[in-house]
Amino acid sequence: MNTIQDRIFRLRAEMEKAGVDAFVITGTDPHASEYLPERWKTRAFISGFNGSFGSVVVTKTEAGLWTDTRYFLQAENELSGSGIKLHKLRVPEAVSMEDWLAATLAPGSVVGIDPQTISLAGFRNLESTLEKKKINIRETDDLLDRIWENRAALPENPVFDFPVEFSGWSRAEKQKMLAGLLAENNADLHVVTMLDELAWLFNLRGSDVNYNPVFTGFGLVGETEMLLFTDQKKIPQALKEQLQNEGIELKEYISFLRYLGQVQNRKIYVDPSTVNYSVYSSVCGKNAFVEGTSLVAHLKSVKNETELAGFRKTMVRDGVALIKFIYWLKTHVGKKRITEYVAGRKLAELRSEQENFVGESFTPIVGYKAHGAMVHLSVNEENALEIEPEGILLFDSGGQYLDGTTDITRTVAIGPVTEQQKRDFTIVLKGMIRLSLAEFPYGTKGCHLDILARKAMWENGMNYGHGTGHGIGHFLNVHEGPMAIRQEYNENLIVPGMVLSNEPAFYREGLYGLRTENMMVCVEKQVTGFGRFLGFETLSVCPIDTTLIVKDLLDEKELAWLNNYHKKINQLLKPVLPTDLHAFLDELTREI
Amino acid sequence: MNTIQDRIFRLRAEMEKAGVDAFVITGTDPHASEYLPERWKTRAFISGFNGSFGSVVVTKTEAGLWTDTRYFLQAENELSGSGIKLHKLRVPEAVSMEDWLAATLAPGSVVGIDPQTISLAGFRNLESTLEKKKINIRETDDLLDRIWENRAALPENPVFDFPVEFSGWSRAEKQKMLAGLLAENNADLHVVTMLDELAWLFNLRGSDVNYNPVFTGFGLVGETEMLLFTDQKKIPQALKEQLQNEGIELKEYISFLRYLGQVQNRKIYVDPSTVNYSVYSSVCGKNAFVEGTSLVAHLKSVKNETELAGFRKTMVRDGVALIKFIYWLKTHVGKKRITEYVAGRKLAELRSEQENFVGESFTPIVGYKAHGAMVHLSVNEENALEIEPEGILLFDSGGQYLDGTTDITRTVAIGPVTEQQKRDFTIVLKGMIRLSLAEFPYGTKGCHLDILARKAMWENGMNYGHGTGHGIGHFLNVHEGPMAIRQEYNENLIVPGMVLSNEPAFYREGLYGLRTENMMVCVEKQVTGFGRFLGFETLSVCPIDTTLIVKDLLDEKELAWLNNYHKKINQLLKPVLPTDLHAFLDELTREI
Repeated sequence: MNTIQDRIFRLRAEMEKAGVDAFVITGTDPHASEYLPERWKTRAFISGFNGSFGSVVVTKTEAGLWTDTRYFLQAENELSGSGIKLHKLRVPEAVSMEDWLAATLAPGSVVGIDPQTISLAGFRNLESTLEKKKINIRETDDLLDRIWENRAALPENPVFDFPVEFSGWSRAEKQKMLAGLLAENNADLHVVTMLDELAWLFNLRGSDVNYNPVFTGFGLVGETEMLLFTDQKKIPQALKEQLQNEGIELKEYISFLRYLGQVQNRKIYVDPSTVNYSVYSSVCGKNAFVEGTSLVAHLKSVKNETELAGFRKTMVRDGVALIKFIYWLKTHVGKKRITEYVAGRKLAELRSEQENFVGESFTPIVGYKAHGAMVHLSVNEENALEIEPEGILLFDSGGQYLDGTTDITRTVAIGPVTEQQKRDFTIVLKGMIRLSLAEFPYGTKGCHLDILARKAMWENGMNYGHGTGHGIGHFLNVHEGPMAIRQEYNENLIVPGMVLSNEPAFYREGLYGLRTENMMVCVEKQVTGFGRFLGFETLSVCPIDTTLIVKDLLDEKELAWLNNYHKKINQLLKPVLPTDLHAFLDELTREI
Repeated sequence: MNTIQDRIFRLRAEMEKAGVDAFVITGTDPHASEYLPERWKTRAFISGFNGSFGSVVVTKTEAGLWTDTRYFLQAENELSGSGIKLHKLRVPEAVSMEDWLAATLAPGSVVGIDPQTISLAGFRNLESTLEKKKINIRETDDLLDRIWENRAALPENPVFDFPVEFSGWSRAEKQKMLAGLLAENNADLHVVTMLDELAWLFNLRGSDVNYNPVFTGFGLVGETEMLLFTDQKKIPQALKEQLQNEGIELKEYISFLRYLGQVQNRKIYVDPSTVNYSVYSSVCGKNAFVEGTSLVAHLKSVKNETELAGFRKTMVRDGVALIKFIYWLKTHVGKKRITEYVAGRKLAELRSEQENFVGESFTPIVGYKAHGAMVHLSVNEENALEIEPEGILLFDSGGQYLDGTTDITRTVAIGPVTEQQKRDFTIVLKGMIRLSLAEFPYGTKGCHLDILARKAMWENGMNYGHGTGHGIGHFLNVHEGPMAIRQEYNENLIVPGMVLSNEPAFYREGLYGLRTENMMVCVEKQVTGFGRFLGFETLSVCPIDTTLIVKDLLDEKELAWLNNYHKKINQLLKPVLPTDLHAFLDELTREI
């Protein structure tokens, strides 16, 4: 019996004691985090599957993992020998975890779940699916805790102040803005459970989660109250006093649900897609609710002038590291052994030399040749390909700096490339440029704009299976909502101050991957008799490999954008790059 | 006291008897029709407002009309002196009729409504808004009937067979397709309440409603049953026998609700956005329901080869009428008095000379100069402007032919025009062409494509306040769902066989309006390793006024599209146009 089988065996015993016929492990934490602290890597613990998305269900006789197209190969490998069956999502014949439970269990069965690990919306969905088959849900304890030896504790990394110098708005200002939005929404208390929202609202940062400068905690904020629930050991004494002097009540992380239990007669704003069901059920009944996209997420997504100024400075430093990296790559490949893994480490090292650098913003994706076509590639020292002086290398990476977060992808020719590769690259680039050039009225949503990035590809029978743009936090998570640029409908408008990625791509499976990703900020363009028109300003400062471009495929506007972009990069980077790289920079940014 | 005040006075007396504090007149009929038979013009009867959209509420002390931006001016004029207050919808400060009722009435109040005149979804919305304020809904009789002297009876125009020669599929084939979709949706009986769906499904047509070749009736269709509820006097004896021989049960219109009352233990498919609440409440309780967009609407929206062949032939005949009209216009304007109204009548007359012509498909919109900027212009003999030999004329019109329905808008220079007008016209045209040229993968929705028609305008700070494309029936309603091309999210895919309009526009208030509208059919383009790609084929056959085009504003692809389009028009129309118009056609379709 392998470890996973053993764990499932022991979970079944706990399920028996808890009186449940099936147990659902959503794989998330009480904060609906994308990146998890060790303690909450429950999906990996129970199944061995390391992907970032997937639910596990264990019944008395079966066990299954539900995940999507991104992870089919990885899941098949990692589940091998565990007895856990892979259920594929986002395929035509997909059966959701909820529907599978309804179809598999007998009426009267009991499905157990730790309500801390499921959102209100997720719980309602599960409930409505199961109740049609008269299957009940039982809210259990964290059953995994009983079988998880040496489980990591909650992280205890210190929390630090994120000064107004970087954040732009003080805690008091943010509280006031939030109170204004609460009043507009006929609510008076906002529950904050997402860690990035908490960090933003309280101008605090931490290091409890890889890549995300957040700390575990909860918040409750209204016009006259600002409560922070986090492990008090994490807050240095001086900061504690500062926060208390500002009128912030500090409470223990573990006291949050208990505190909520005493809240009554309030009009509480919750985001059902992220608030966990324990939190909701602690306050429901005694309070009124207003449900909607987190108001903190709305506020956070629109960057203020200080944040934007920080982003702009960050981009220049990030650009310096990237130029140095490309130079190193081009001068070393073929001369010494460089693997994708080594290249990723080198890039992180070059970024770490930059001012205000705190860490990487995600695991770098460095994909050579066929690896470039694997969207969720994660290589290690063992399986990394060696980069040779031919073909194409894609690298998608980013840094966390005190004054901003970066996320950028470049695809470069490491040696000879084919005409097909250049053609494909240029067609993808056309989409990136067209989206950069977009002008649109106030009221436009991401799903309206997405086609700009895809149009040239569609005309050539090409496409890519992921979104085009995600929000990016300011010295916060590299993925943030509530808006996005993708085909899927998202009701949130794209408005000035939002920082988004622009990353159309193309993957020839088994051959190569092409992606050019810039960060952009939405800006005002003009006001006419027909309304207020918006557009984007590109933030990222790194040349696009012109040796991969078929110039004839670009139209005048696209070509002008490219040449202007390179001119601006040259102007921004030359003053800060070592003199011996000036000729290289000129070469990379030469007008075509 | 004017007529409207008198009617409201008498309605209040009926409300008193019925025990309701407020009465809602939705202004629709039991079939959720856009165009109404006389009997159901309740909105106009009670308020004097003749717009096609709006709800009226009468309370003991107040009366209000809720309508949208299209009709603000018209409503202000028509409500003048009636005591009815205009409530504006689709403006930032809008308060919906439901919210107004909740805010205005005291808890315990009773709102009355004739449940035949509200959809299931509309009823639920009203109910959920009112129940928060503990306001009750009472389903009343048709209270207006008691005060409406000389109200028109239900129309009794004859129903006629629509042969397979035109419809492509027999009634039995349509029943089979519908049964297949019902089974896929876990249902076994479809309630058909929309008149165009009924006409399509039963291959019957009528003339009960202006412009729409439909007849009043209901349908119930399952795998082994096909019931038609319509006034039996309307069906000629021979057709009656034919239908009965095909196994169709014929029942009286007025027996529909009674029949439904006996249906039990079925899985009934209803479209909550269109089925009226009386119909739903007649069958609820004793049956299971599946709710979704009408399956008949889905089937109807995808045209078969016969329907498409009919459309193509229709377009040529419509094109002949249009060329004759443009010729008449250009040779007569300035020489004799021609008003917008006269031009509209002339156009109808020219269409009526064409084979298979049955009638107009909507009231023609002929707008000269400033009138062209009024989107919902409807002129009569009195208020029509005289067309003089200068400036711009917009005409939006269409015909009902046995083998297809047309809807086309052209904007033509009647004499000297300004550079600004040409520039505006060309920018609008760019959008029309870009949407015509769209290529997109299967799975694309209208909201993804809409930007193609607007992009050039947005880049110039221009926009238009209506949708870009609507579905068009085959010898049926000129507006049909379920898909659309517009900014608003619509979950229905654009798939091959759908016929849609493509009508970007631009309006300079008080000056002129510009719109070019073609009909297109969605077609297969290519299949690649990245999926199935679709596009559009233009159906409309009528030149676009090249004297209004600034050639330099068109890119190569746009120009090629235009010249190819004109070449095709020349080829299609020359063989069927009188010889004396050949030179004129050559001039209109000359390559630029």
